[in-house]
Amino acid sequence: MNRAILIPVGDELLSGNVVDTNSGWIAHQLDLIGIPVSRIYTVPDDFNSLLEILKEAEEKAEIVIITGGLGPTKDDVTKSVLAHWSHSQLKEDLPTLSRIQAYFKARGKEVNELNAAQAIVPDKAEVLPNHLGTAPGLWIPSSRGCVVSLPGVPFEMKDLMIQEVLPRFRKNYAGALWLEHTLLTLGIPESELALHLKPIEDVLPPEVKIAYLPQPGLVKVKLRIQAEANQKETGIILLHQQIEKIKQRLGGSVAGEGDETPEGIIHTLLLSSNQTLATAESCTGGALASSLLGIPGASAWFLGGMIPYQNRRKNEWLGVENDLFHTVGAVSEPVAKQMAEGIRQRTGSTYGIGITGIAGPGGATPEKPVGTVWISLASPDETITECYLFERDRQRNIRRTCLAAIDMLRKKHLGLWGRGRFD
Amino acid sequence: MNRAILIPVGDELLSGNVVDTNSGWIAHQLDLIGIPVSRIYTVPDDFNSLLEILKEAEEKAEIVIITGGLGPTKDDVTKSVLAHWSHSQLKEDLPTLSRIQAYFKARGKEVNELNAAQAIVPDKAEVLPNHLGTAPGLWIPSSRGCVVSLPGVPFEMKDLMIQEVLPRFRKNYAGALWLEHTLLTLGIPESELALHLKPIEDVLPPEVKIAYLPQPGLVKVKLRIQAEANQKETGIILLHQQIEKIKQRLGGSVAGEGDETPEGIIHTLLLSSNQTLATAESCTGGALASSLLGIPGASAWFLGGMIPYQNRRKNEWLGVENDLFHTVGAVSEPVAKQMAEGIRQRTGSTYGIGITGIAGPGGATPEKPVGTVWISLASPDETITECYLFERDRQRNIRRTCLAAIDMLRKKHLGLWGRGRFD
Repeated sequence: MNRAILIPVGDELLSGNVVDTNSGWIAHQLDLIGIPVSRIYTVPDDFNSLLEILKEAEEKAEIVIITGGLGPTKDDVTKSVLAHWSHSQLKEDLPTLSRIQAYFKARGKEVNELNAAQAIVPDKAEVLPNHLGTAPGLWIPSSRGCVVSLPGVPFEMKDLMIQEVLPRFRKNYAGALWLEHTLLTLGIPESELALHLKPIEDVLPPEVKIAYLPQPGLVKVKLRIQAEANQKETGIILLHQQIEKIKQRLGGSVAGEGDETPEGIIHTLLLSSNQTLATAESCTGGALASSLLGIPGASAWFLGGMIPYQNRRKNEWLGVENDLFHTVGAVSEPVAKQMAEGIRQRTGSTYGIGITGIAGPGGATPEKPVGTVWISLASPDETITECYLFERDRQRNIRRTCLAAIDMLRKKHLGLWGRGRFD
Repeated sequence: MNRAILIPVGDELLSGNVVDTNSGWIAHQLDLIGIPVSRIYTVPDDFNSLLEILKEAEEKAEIVIITGGLGPTKDDVTKSVLAHWSHSQLKEDLPTLSRIQAYFKARGKEVNELNAAQAIVPDKAEVLPNHLGTAPGLWIPSSRGCVVSLPGVPFEMKDLMIQEVLPRFRKNYAGALWLEHTLLTLGIPESELALHLKPIEDVLPPEVKIAYLPQPGLVKVKLRIQAEANQKETGIILLHQQIEKIKQRLGGSVAGEGDETPEGIIHTLLLSSNQTLATAESCTGGALASSLLGIPGASAWFLGGMIPYQNRRKNEWLGVENDLFHTVGAVSEPVAKQMAEGIRQRTGSTYGIGITGIAGPGGATPEKPVGTVWISLASPDETITECYLFERDRQRNIRRTCLAAIDMLRKKHLGLWGRGRFD
């Protein structure tokens, strides 16, 4: 039986200009309360396409959620389709109009006619107030359950789901329990992980599922372990047993759990041990610092960063010896080392990271192909330096370099540096 | 009539762990050769779900493209579904096996059994060689046209589309011509743009469509203008006329065209005028530098960056007067100004950007709420400094700050700074 079907609406989703991040988020929220999403049907901003798919979905599933197509411009069709399908009239909803007026007043702006048109809704719909934007959510009963319409703007959609929609679903539709947990591994490709876990997968209980969620081009794989259970307690025990087995087998390659990110792991490690970090990045151009500083509260342990993109800055700002540029070149072990040690010294941080490499596509030499990167980590007891050879794509090389640097710091900090991959 | 339907496969797409960027890319490629995508059906890694939707799609559309579900791990089902649907046997394809062996040999690695299993394919399928990975593409004739299966890894999928699939589509399926062009606007919200363009939209020829593609939370809207034509020449003239009208009406708020990005625009402007830039970022933590340095060749004009996250660094590294931290605070006009001028002076760059603000969620005071950001741009003739008040979300505040800084630089460089929004 189909429990839930999602219908993202918008030409922009069918043209590559906008990526649909809403559907995955909604599906995950539903999954956790035992409402599996069986399909996502993406349709263009076209009256007949949406109407056809809405009728099909509504016959198949208890819950249908439409996202998007509620914008203030001409090309949005969701409300007229909903009105047609539910035999409603479109009418102005006064509480929504007041909310829109208040929304603009708080921002010192006038309501224009397009904004005001957001208050026009099908009369058979229950209005779900949108506190972060102008387009309201709509809830319309259907033959098997309900059709919900939400704005396509992700943070407005999420707020409406959390405040209005999920509480109703929990009350009326929640089903068989799926418990899940996620492990984050770093540094090991998917197929190697899968082979190493084969002994565990071969004897996996039928109620347990393991899924590999690799990030293309990055050596960062999430393992999602799910257990089905009628009772929460049984499920937790079953899940916990399997997770312990997996963690033991994978050793230090498991970097985090749940929603943890590589950057978040560094945040937790440094914050809890009262240690600090500073960075000197050449080929990554600040990508490492900015990914770490994306974490709220990182100011507690991040002391400063430099992006000495040119050799002269490496010398002036960090004390890298000028001779090295002529003898071994800027992309070399001693330059990375002096950058790491230089930034550590200049900020008084516990750890200093130095990065120099060739992100590409230009800058390669026969001895140093695109993707050659030296990463150095200066710490209180030693400076460790590694050479990596990534691939041809600039953006992916930058991201892989940041991940490799984060993993070096994690392993060094935890005393795992220099051990085997699964130790 | 349905010309093309896409079927992305994977539990990870239904759980929010991975975002489907493939479908939009494919749809856009097909759009440009007159093959509109009418639906995207996303289904889980489940034999019956995929089989059901494949049968439905294959009856409705000439072209069906399945992405994903070809990975080396147990949970991938695409090949067995294709074999069942096409009444094929699964057999080992020797050329594919050789290609996989060569792929691993080139990387100095052994082929493990999971990798080798990628060479097993349905015998009614034509194999499309994958030169960047192990899972081959498959092409199977259907009652109305064809079913194509591609790996889910984006760069492998794209390479297969470009090398193998699109040339065949162009030959056998290409349809009525849609010409399109995109304009990138900065600094104006979607509804304001739409109102300002109303006089043009009201008299738009029926063969022309305008779509608004805003990025949630960012004041960066793409306008996609499309024209339908039987002959390329007629379409180009029609499209060109409308684009000129729109550009004239929107004035300096149009920052770029086609695939141009805000960062790419800065790259072009600075490179062509032989001018240079350096950055000093506090609350954005290197995000501005790293977004600019994501552009290949940026080393020609980016002289260096600093991330003086702490007040002491702002003083030591950039010469910001220590008094200011006590009198007006770190998030203030004079501090931003001294950061911009300091980095410009220390690198000898044409332009220096200084950024200081409260990205959130912490760090706010009653006078300086979360989202308060000062951006300063030092240039040869003057230093301009602006205060922005963004919203509550840290990541979005960082991204909006970077965009605002880029737009200040663009406007100053082009002599647009200080004029009206549409001048």
